[in-house]
Amino acid sequence: MRNIRLLLQYEGTRYQGWQKQESSENTIQGRLEALLTKMCGEKTEVQGSGRTDAGVHAKAQIANFHTVSQMSPEEILAYMNRYLPEDIAVLEVKEVPERFHSRLNAKGKCYQYQVINSAVPDVFLRRYAYQQEQKLNLEDMRTAAGYLLGEHDFKGFTSSKKGRKSTVRRIDEITIEKSGELLTFTFRGNGFLYHMIRIIMGTLLETGAGLRSPQEITQILTEGSREKAGVLVPAKGLTLVEVMYE
Amino acid sequence: MRNIRLLLQYEGTRYQGWQKQESSENTIQGRLEALLTKMCGEKTEVQGSGRTDAGVHAKAQIANFHTVSQMSPEEILAYMNRYLPEDIAVLEVKEVPERFHSRLNAKGKCYQYQVINSAVPDVFLRRYAYQQEQKLNLEDMRTAAGYLLGEHDFKGFTSSKKGRKSTVRRIDEITIEKSGELLTFTFRGNGFLYHMIRIIMGTLLETGAGLRSPQEITQILTEGSREKAGVLVPAKGLTLVEVMYE
Repeated sequence: MRNIRLLLQYEGTRYQGWQKQESSENTIQGRLEALLTKMCGEKTEVQGSGRTDAGVHAKAQIANFHTVSQMSPEEILAYMNRYLPEDIAVLEVKEVPERFHSRLNAKGKCYQYQVINSAVPDVFLRRYAYQQEQKLNLEDMRTAAGYLLGEHDFKGFTSSKKGRKSTVRRIDEITIEKSGELLTFTFRGNGFLYHMIRIIMGTLLETGAGLRSPQEITQILTEGSREKAGVLVPAKGLTLVEVMYE
Repeated sequence: MRNIRLLLQYEGTRYQGWQKQESSENTIQGRLEALLTKMCGEKTEVQGSGRTDAGVHAKAQIANFHTVSQMSPEEILAYMNRYLPEDIAVLEVKEVPERFHSRLNAKGKCYQYQVINSAVPDVFLRRYAYQQEQKLNLEDMRTAAGYLLGEHDFKGFTSSKKGRKSTVRRIDEITIEKSGELLTFTFRGNGFLYHMIRIIMGTLLETGAGLRSPQEITQILTEGSREKAGVLVPAKGLTLVEVMYE
């Protein structure tokens, strides 16, 4: 069996997220598996580095699949881009060692969240950025973000039901860049819980708008209570921009 | 009567261009006039700085309308952005002297045309850039573009039927910038004929692909024959980025 690694790009707007569902064809994984099964002439499963939620985009998602097909990487790339819908693209196809697993081998991820900080909408970014009218204090948001760096139990910043899985994660970087009215928040860490970045973003934006103090972050981390954290901001502002491997 | 100037942004993808048509509600001008007529409570006409074709975008179109309405510029901005579809936005509203005419007073325009020079599609730019697989020689395209600068009869670079109107225009700037696989062509001039930029673009891309020599531009200019020029490239790569006034 050959192991094929895909570098993927997609606009999440019209999909119900990465993970395939029984009831819906409208997932990225579902679309890819339907196409690969046809291409390879055998039932083919695709493993992604992680799920992205409904509406979340990816500039560089990593996935892999096993096949006995003898198609070259170039042929696979051309075939897939020919038949995929225009909001999913394959940027690169590589044959990798059989032990490579896109999810288990991932050492970290980088996401960006975009905010248009303006009273007027931006037509060209409306699918990729969340519009926030209130003026935002960058320094307060940066102070708040600083408290999140390092290893913490992020139980207060996830929507997942209580489970036995660990909610401890490590965030290595949170940067906030401003270009005109566009704010780009970059998050780099060893992994992110369900809704974690979008709840952190809601909390940071409430801090920037002066609705809470930067120090409240430490309280949410200590208490681990979802109710103390900010709102869940819309998925459309979020993009997976890198998956890190060793 | 007050004269109100609008700075507009729109994604042209689903519109049949700027200019209103009897048969179609789906034009930018048509949408704006329907909304302004409702807002002002009187039949209101909007004058744009120029037409954009079906599928062409605008980051900074200028338009104006006359009204007896006493709404403030801020109220007009908020009202319009509230009711316009999400692919049209008003960035700025200003009251201007009664003699201001967005088309007649325009001294020049700046357009950009975006090309993704890659064999793989770009999901996020698919509505705003034209994908060209063949490798492009930037130097040849720049040489060809150089011949177009200054005042010329651009009859060979327009689709308009022969008429009595002058086809002489002046191009002050054509620059080609490369950022990764994205090429941005910037055109600045005192005005552009129907399809002029898209036919120039087709000609430049054929030059860059080695299908014609840069010098052929001078021949097309001299002979004024549309058949000698390149193909009309898709509208979606074209964006009006500035309208210049004195």
